[in-house]
Amino acid sequence: MTPAVPSALFADRLRRAGEVAALHDTDLLLVTPGTDLQYLIGAEGSSHERLTCLVLPAAGHRAPPALVVPRLEAPGLAGLPLEELGVEIVTWTDGDDPYLLVSDLAGGPTRIGLVDSMPAAHVIGLRDAFPEVAQELAGPVIRELRMRKDPAEVAELRAAGAAIDRVHARMGEFLKPGRTEKQVGADIAAAILEEGHRQAAFVIVGSGPNGASPHHDVSDRVIESGDVVVIDIGGPLPSGYNSDCTRTYAVGGEPAASVREAYAVLQDAQERAVAAVRPSVTAEQVDAAARQPIRAAGLGERFVHRTGHGIGLDVHEEPYIVGGNELQLEPGMAFSVEPGIYLDGEWGARIEDIVVVTDNGCERLNTRPRDLVVL
Amino acid sequence: MTPAVPSALFADRLRRAGEVAALHDTDLLLVTPGTDLQYLIGAEGSSHERLTCLVLPAAGHRAPPALVVPRLEAPGLAGLPLEELGVEIVTWTDGDDPYLLVSDLAGGPTRIGLVDSMPAAHVIGLRDAFPEVAQELAGPVIRELRMRKDPAEVAELRAAGAAIDRVHARMGEFLKPGRTEKQVGADIAAAILEEGHRQAAFVIVGSGPNGASPHHDVSDRVIESGDVVVIDIGGPLPSGYNSDCTRTYAVGGEPAASVREAYAVLQDAQERAVAAVRPSVTAEQVDAAARQPIRAAGLGERFVHRTGHGIGLDVHEEPYIVGGNELQLEPGMAFSVEPGIYLDGEWGARIEDIVVVTDNGCERLNTRPRDLVVL
Repeated sequence: MTPAVPSALFADRLRRAGEVAALHDTDLLLVTPGTDLQYLIGAEGSSHERLTCLVLPAAGHRAPPALVVPRLEAPGLAGLPLEELGVEIVTWTDGDDPYLLVSDLAGGPTRIGLVDSMPAAHVIGLRDAFPEVAQELAGPVIRELRMRKDPAEVAELRAAGAAIDRVHARMGEFLKPGRTEKQVGADIAAAILEEGHRQAAFVIVGSGPNGASPHHDVSDRVIESGDVVVIDIGGPLPSGYNSDCTRTYAVGGEPAASVREAYAVLQDAQERAVAAVRPSVTAEQVDAAARQPIRAAGLGERFVHRTGHGIGLDVHEEPYIVGGNELQLEPGMAFSVEPGIYLDGEWGARIEDIVVVTDNGCERLNTRPRDLVVL
Repeated sequence: MTPAVPSALFADRLRRAGEVAALHDTDLLLVTPGTDLQYLIGAEGSSHERLTCLVLPAAGHRAPPALVVPRLEAPGLAGLPLEELGVEIVTWTDGDDPYLLVSDLAGGPTRIGLVDSMPAAHVIGLRDAFPEVAQELAGPVIRELRMRKDPAEVAELRAAGAAIDRVHARMGEFLKPGRTEKQVGADIAAAILEEGHRQAAFVIVGSGPNGASPHHDVSDRVIESGDVVVIDIGGPLPSGYNSDCTRTYAVGGEPAASVREAYAVLQDAQERAVAAVRPSVTAEQVDAAARQPIRAAGLGERFVHRTGHGIGLDVHEEPYIVGGNELQLEPGMAFSVEPGIYLDGEWGARIEDIVVVTDNGCERLNTRPRDLVVL
């Protein structure tokens, strides 16, 4: 619970969240544990059945900021700069109704914004305690802050990218014919920790036909010589900022010419999409830049997902790089560029880098070779 | 994703959930990833921004059961017996509106039940797609099933209890004066995995004054000779069923007489509460049985939390052993009995066993000595 972030930065985030909420005609944001609460005040952990909730007024709304927390969890907040931030701690005890407590603190709002991750148990509990109040998502407010990373956040994402690149650099130690995906995955998970992450949050080892399932995990399949293998790995640093990087490997020798050919299309698509990233370009234009060469090669139907997702305290967050998203990119936005090609029952390939938008283009946070590396 | 549970058991759970939903006047249950979905169909994993949702009709409602899933995640469902269960897979692609898809499949419901863990993003998305439908929590329906464990579930909880008891049996290897709570905690976490858990979900090492914070984690505090230390640990087995057991240790020699005296009260309270557990007794009567001797010793204000919580696929689930809960216990209910005494700034103690209600009493799933063990 000891924040690495200076409390002045939290104060600024709370102030800006209140201002954006007011622009969205939301009187109050209600923030339960999760990455939004970590972003706003540094509190870690996830939601439990006992309500913990930051009551954050919009600029101009009459309620003071408060953190409602079960009494037995209050000592765990000792490391947070709540007094400096002017956030009052209000405790409750098993048997009390914490939703009525929030309602008492809320200052008579008309519209409240709930964080996107709030469990339904709390959403419905709050609805019943304030039946006359319109519930909306706080996501559109908080994303305005979170999707524009400040320099300290970019530095954390850069460190995360370097850490996961070191794991990919060691792939020859792990990925060998005759081993199962699970064995390879366990070694990769250990390397993710050794290279500085606090958790190996996901380890996809998609060998041969399993590579054609974009969200495959690991299995008991034995990797064979000649397999194409998708390795998509990442997790949080101690600060909570995440890595996420995919490379595709050919194990035990040269792949078939048809694989080489399709892979060259994919690599070109990923390059073009990264080259398209700069301020004022829209998210959907980056998606289109990745999609166009794949479609031109007759493989458009094989690229079954969006081109990318924002990254920060969550592995998936705004901005999403997807058709229909007309958001204009701005410096400080960080997201993945990860086109893929999936041939059901045969093989798959994906290339993924995290990029951060700069004043005139972007910085890639992953720098390992992007060709089909033969191990 | 390969369920250890026979598909006939899932079929029975789906049928009973539909029957209980009908009794609650709920037309449809909507179940996003989490432990409820694992319980009902064996699907593991947690909710993401892309909607995955089981549409489960109440008995007599016209909609057929369906699992709405992002197309790119559909291959991950291959291990589930969906065809045997009569659950149709309905996929969607980035850019589609999955909430409208659920609405199309829902058969015109009046009241829908949402699982308690469903993220607000999906709650509000579904509300906007079915604005005329009343949203309620599915928890009161699904808990009717989940809080009564079947013999296979009890066997898993028994195995989990034995596994965490083996970790407590090794505490002398880890818990020594001169080591920090973090060092001790890291060793305990490794032992939790070695003894058969798939994850060390929580490791509380509350030494000296930190023991007075019931939900303390670990810190850099160096454990000193004479400290009283609360060790509360657990996590899931590969099946997903959890352990949770607390013992309190005196490190480096005999504790003060005042500690011995208060601890004796606590041990008596825990014994009395366990002795009170049998069918037809209410949850609040068990809570009262723990509270009475602590109150009689003038320490009532030091026991700041409920006496226990149900356990299964979640570490905390129904039934909660708390004042005001008039639920009558039944065979197969499994929960913790864990009174504690907390002296702010000085020390704390807690004794926790998981028990399962039997036909005429209960079975304790943790059997390590409950006295203040001097290490």
